[in-house]
Amino acid sequence: MLNPQASIDVIMFWLALIATMAFAITAVLAIADRGVDIFGVMVLGVITAVGGGTVRDLLLGVQPFWVEDLVFVGVAMLSSLLAFVARSFFTQPQVFTLMLYLDGLGAALFGIQGAMKTYEMAFGWPLAPVILGVITAIGGGIMRDVIAGRKNLLMTTELYAIPVALGCLLLMASLHFYPRHAIELLISCTALTFLMRAAAIHWGLKVPAFLVTHSKSH
Amino acid sequence: MLNPQASIDVIMFWLALIATMAFAITAVLAIADRGVDIFGVMVLGVITAVGGGTVRDLLLGVQPFWVEDLVFVGVAMLSSLLAFVARSFFTQPQVFTLMLYLDGLGAALFGIQGAMKTYEMAFGWPLAPVILGVITAIGGGIMRDVIAGRKNLLMTTELYAIPVALGCLLLMASLHFYPRHAIELLISCTALTFLMRAAAIHWGLKVPAFLVTHSKSH
Amino acid sequence: MLNPQASIDVIMFWLALIATMAFAITAVLAIADRGVDIFGVMVLGVITAVGGGTVRDLLLGVQPFWVEDLVFVGVAMLSSLLAFVARSFFTQPQVFTLMLYLDGLGAALFGIQGAMKTYEMAFGWPLAPVILGVITAIGGGIMRDVIAGRKNLLMTTELYAIPVALGCLLLMASLHFYPRHAIELLISCTALTFLMRAAAIHWGLKVPAFLVTHSKSH
Repeated sequence: MLNPQASIDVIMFWLALIATMAFAITAVLAIADRGVDIFGVMVLGVITAVGGGTVRDLLLGVQPFWVEDLVFVGVAMLSSLLAFVARSFFTQPQVFTLMLYLDGLGAALFGIQGAMKTYEMAFGWPLAPVILGVITAIGGGIMRDVIAGRKNLLMTTELYAIPVALGCLLLMASLHFYPRHAIELLISCTALTFLMRAAAIHWGLKVPAFLVTHSKSH
Repeated sequence: MLNPQASIDVIMFWLALIATMAFAITAVLAIADRGVDIFGVMVLGVITAVGGGTVRDLLLGVQPFWVEDLVFVGVAMLSSLLAFVARSFFTQPQVFTLMLYLDGLGAALFGIQGAMKTYEMAFGWPLAPVILGVITAIGGGIMRDVIAGRKNLLMTTELYAIPVALGCLLLMASLHFYPRHAIELLISCTALTFLMRAAAIHWGLKVPAFLVTHSKSH
Repeated sequence: MLNPQASIDVIMFWLALIATMAFAITAVLAIADRGVDIFGVMVLGVITAVGGGTVRDLLLGVQPFWVEDLVFVGVAMLSSLLAFVARSFFTQPQVFTLMLYLDGLGAALFGIQGAMKTYEMAFGWPLAPVILGVITAIGGGIMRDVIAGRKNLLMTTELYAIPVALGCLLLMASLHFYPRHAIELLISCTALTFLMRAAAIHWGLKVPAFLVTHSKSH
């Protein structure tokens, strides 16, 4: 007999592994034009993949999630090495687009999972779960860009963090009314967040200009 | 009958709220010329307002101060939004100058409170309270500038962190001799720190050139 | 009668003090051409010297190592001031080279000690001790460069972090087979890591070009 909770855990674990791979690979592709050696590539790949969740766990006051099961760090290292040696494969238009979508799936998954973990610890409801969800999803990428001297996504009009924030907000609002349906809400909010991000990738959607500051001198 | 301790707590709370507002608003004004969207504005406003105190609490090993009472994060978010929509109001010379002084009040208040919190936990006296006081006051602003790719105040000759460090040092020295007058010393050191910063704003004081490194090539 | 463990502790303590000095002094020399005031110099010297160990301790969930014994922060402050006032002394070719080797000794010492501390806490063996060893050795320098707006060593082909990573890996592998010889392994891995770094300084060794990403456009 199938246990649905166990099946979902297995699916979530594998999705998280795939997302970790995608985060590490897109990280390497993002910094590769700066002349980084194989060690720097691995460090920045790992930071991108597990950095956000690590900051979340420090704020929650719990052990970083990757310490108990080192598979996430290991997969991030191997994926970074793979992207280093097979960069020309991953920069092919179709493969790169697939990576973009998997990276978006990762942002949705990590963000919603981060919000859920914060919610389950009754930590600063309702704002903290949303904040820590966003940190889980984008924190690693921002650290990578700060270390690599690149413009990070907070300084662009990319629709990346906003879908995550909306998804986490929706998760908190719906958990408030239906606290017994945590699993269903987790899955639907992850799907919805991913769909928002996928729409942004597919149609090249950006934050509209009237919601962006502009220099006075222009 | 009035309870003086309770009155002081209320005043301190309201001053901290005003300072949080000022930190978030000056943050938005500082980064606005870089074309940041409304979400990035909120994130950077919140980081500036609560980032320093968060690092302090991580070092102290306690829960971030904003988790128990989310009003500080909420006020920082709303103030950032306000600065986003009403930027032309806040960039008027007189309003901007008022914001500068309120920001200086915030640095004094957060710095001295951070040092006092560290002192009360008997954490690494006497150097750690001074270090954590300075981190509380300037940590958020440095994170904002690093993320936004701006030159931060450690790399300028602005008299901003030095008054905070002197105020925290004075607090530690005076608490050593008069440990029973914590409230009076807290208030006077905050006032003194603010006056030093206000003098720096009013007269445009900078760190004198002989206390600044200069390039050998010039 | 001599107690060998106590003698080793004393030698390790003094080596760590010398390494702290070297980290702070090389930090000041690295940022001095950017016009930093005496306060910024002290802050960046201290961050370079104790920042990596602080991040390690936050990840381990223990109190930052410098809180119990403030001598490391104090020495870092005084060394930064010394480098500020006597910069022309430390930039003499022979003195500067000595500082480079002492800095390399510091990286070896802090890295291996960081890995050992992580190992003794049974924290995420075997990957986490290597990761936290590397963070201990290079974390402070990376924070300094990010704050100062300099290119950090992850973005260069300098052989600095790789010897530390190899030394920590070797320590973990050898501790696995000879857990009762922790002291001997600690000393030999530190020596070996330092020798790798010293060779890199002496012969100007870099990461070979085929292990470095290169821009597609060239």
